[in-house]
Amino acid sequence: MGKPTDSAWMARALQLARRGNYTTHPNPRVGCVLVKNRRVVGEGWHVRAGEPHAEVHALRMAGDAARRATAYVTLEPCSHQGRTGPCAVALIEAGVKRVVVAMQDPNPDVAGRGIAMLREAGVDVVVGLLEEEAKALNPGFISRMTRLRPYVRMKMAMSLDGRTAMQSGESQWITGPHARAEVQRLRASASAIMTGVDSIIFDNSRLTVRASQLALDDAEAIAERQPLRVVVDTQLRLPQAAACLREPGRTLLATAPGHDPQRRARLEAAGAEVVVIRAGGDGRIDLTSLMRYLVEQELVNELLLETGATLAGAMLDAGLVDEMQLFVAPTLLGGEARPLFALPGLTRMAQQRPLEILDIRAVGRDWRITARPERRQIEA
Amino acid sequence: MGKPTDSAWMARALQLARRGNYTTHPNPRVGCVLVKNRRVVGEGWHVRAGEPHAEVHALRMAGDAARRATAYVTLEPCSHQGRTGPCAVALIEAGVKRVVVAMQDPNPDVAGRGIAMLREAGVDVVVGLLEEEAKALNPGFISRMTRLRPYVRMKMAMSLDGRTAMQSGESQWITGPHARAEVQRLRASASAIMTGVDSIIFDNSRLTVRASQLALDDAEAIAERQPLRVVVDTQLRLPQAAACLREPGRTLLATAPGHDPQRRARLEAAGAEVVVIRAGGDGRIDLTSLMRYLVEQELVNELLLETGATLAGAMLDAGLVDEMQLFVAPTLLGGEARPLFALPGLTRMAQQRPLEILDIRAVGRDWRITARPERRQIEA
Repeated sequence: MGKPTDSAWMARALQLARRGNYTTHPNPRVGCVLVKNRRVVGEGWHVRAGEPHAEVHALRMAGDAARRATAYVTLEPCSHQGRTGPCAVALIEAGVKRVVVAMQDPNPDVAGRGIAMLREAGVDVVVGLLEEEAKALNPGFISRMTRLRPYVRMKMAMSLDGRTAMQSGESQWITGPHARAEVQRLRASASAIMTGVDSIIFDNSRLTVRASQLALDDAEAIAERQPLRVVVDTQLRLPQAAACLREPGRTLLATAPGHDPQRRARLEAAGAEVVVIRAGGDGRIDLTSLMRYLVEQELVNELLLETGATLAGAMLDAGLVDEMQLFVAPTLLGGEARPLFALPGLTRMAQQRPLEILDIRAVGRDWRITARPERRQIEA
Repeated sequence: MGKPTDSAWMARALQLARRGNYTTHPNPRVGCVLVKNRRVVGEGWHVRAGEPHAEVHALRMAGDAARRATAYVTLEPCSHQGRTGPCAVALIEAGVKRVVVAMQDPNPDVAGRGIAMLREAGVDVVVGLLEEEAKALNPGFISRMTRLRPYVRMKMAMSLDGRTAMQSGESQWITGPHARAEVQRLRASASAIMTGVDSIIFDNSRLTVRASQLALDDAEAIAERQPLRVVVDTQLRLPQAAACLREPGRTLLATAPGHDPQRRARLEAAGAEVVVIRAGGDGRIDLTSLMRYLVEQELVNELLLETGATLAGAMLDAGLVDEMQLFVAPTLLGGEARPLFALPGLTRMAQQRPLEILDIRAVGRDWRITARPERRQIEA
């Protein structure tokens, strides 16, 4: 298996991979370090789809020094993709003698092929070092490949008494500037941002990444990619004047069969793209089908859900929420204000939705809670 | 002023004082350390009303060694109270040469008298060392003396979406055993526990300290004092069969003028004590008057409020809540479940109630948030 110092080099490769956090969509974040005689001779990370993979960057930097080096890669080298040919072949041709891989390719159709290719060429291959950390880099890519749906992160801003807005819909500035910058970074790392049409009607949200609010060094470059905006709009009620239609990037309206074709034409003229998703028995869009569509047609890895109680509750009820990011402001809005989740039919304690709280930390004067729904429910 | 090692000895005195946390009601928690030649020659804390003060315990332990010692006391020595005479006199008579006091007596009628008595006798007195820490020992005693109302700590158990119970009232076991033990300790440190009659009707709460749940070494001794139970019951709707009436300790029903005298007689026969408090314009008990009554007649220092949304909201709106202890369970109860606070009339963001979050920590699988209302409101 691995050597004692292997984890340190792999940790460096993971760190490099994270630099692609905001830019690799729809590709995974990958880092690579080439080490010879206990010295880094090359390193790199995948920056952007269409540009070289991490291994290619590292091999270019290493040049001849790659011969007899060890490569640390956070994801199995590809056996077929890439503008510069399969990375497995590139590693072999460069004379790399050992490859340490954090995790196999999650795509079941190609998993293990790159590793097999390396081994057939006589390269010593170790697989599984810091695997959990490598998986945490790409929850969306893995989810798309293995579950055919995006990794859904639900972001909500609430008062300490669990309220997101006043009854009137008034909701601006519950949380402070630090929390808002974190939300901007959540947006920037997502392939797509989804909301319900009512959230747009109430707030006229733009759902964009704003460079000025990211508080990151390379904010301008990051904000060049605007995540796809997905609006769940069964009856095509989106106002043509909605601010999000005039922002850079695409706005996709997910609607149901039987919508008004004239409205559709007007919204398309205003810049929206419309996709018809099958409806469930209640006439609402079937959310599981929508998730499947987003994966298959839009290659959505991570989906950020920023919406109101109804769609949030429906996504939860459909078992489609993987992670919650709750920003809690130190304030009370009272029992008449809007709830975090509508969970219709939940009337007995036995039906409660248990969560696992993974992290709580201060963000300016607010608090950020990371939680995930427990798959086990007390009563089915 | 103080010497470098003074704080260390005072910290020890504060630690001793804390041992009286559950037992000194209605007296303050006080600790005392006597030091001579850098060695502790005596120490003690006030255990229980009617028993000696901290200084007396320490002097008894020191005996002759008290002569020319320095006394560290967390509260100004008394000038008039105590079965064993004023503590200031006892310190003088024992020949103590220097007294370091963390804080003056908060009672405006006697503040400074003990200190003056010591100084007149030629004792060197330093005042104000670790004063904030000393004040934190006795928020209730200080509040009773200076504001003529108790220090009100509001305890609530809620789901992550800010719900305390199902719409039906079902609420048992939102939080886990660790959180429940902390609530038991909050009860045990309070002079009184207050709730609304509906909470009793719904939950049949006993509002008692149970030794078996305290998870403290001296649990049995602590549970011998049951905090006064105060039930806000404007119309005397408490069922005669309420479990709290059959528990050790007293149950006080706060009712309004014009209640039904027959109900009163029946409830008194069942073991309740009834007190009539003036009503406000809305016919409900005036909560500020009730607080005044509890201070003046029952010597309540710290009041633990464990109640539902209506009384909780009314106490908040009356500006009578000093601290919130929110136990948050990692679960969702949904938008139809009961809210944390009814805050009628709060309809605009500008009217929100800002809080200051002082602490968030894990308690078993739950979380405990300590917060306090910010006195400044965004809009009056």
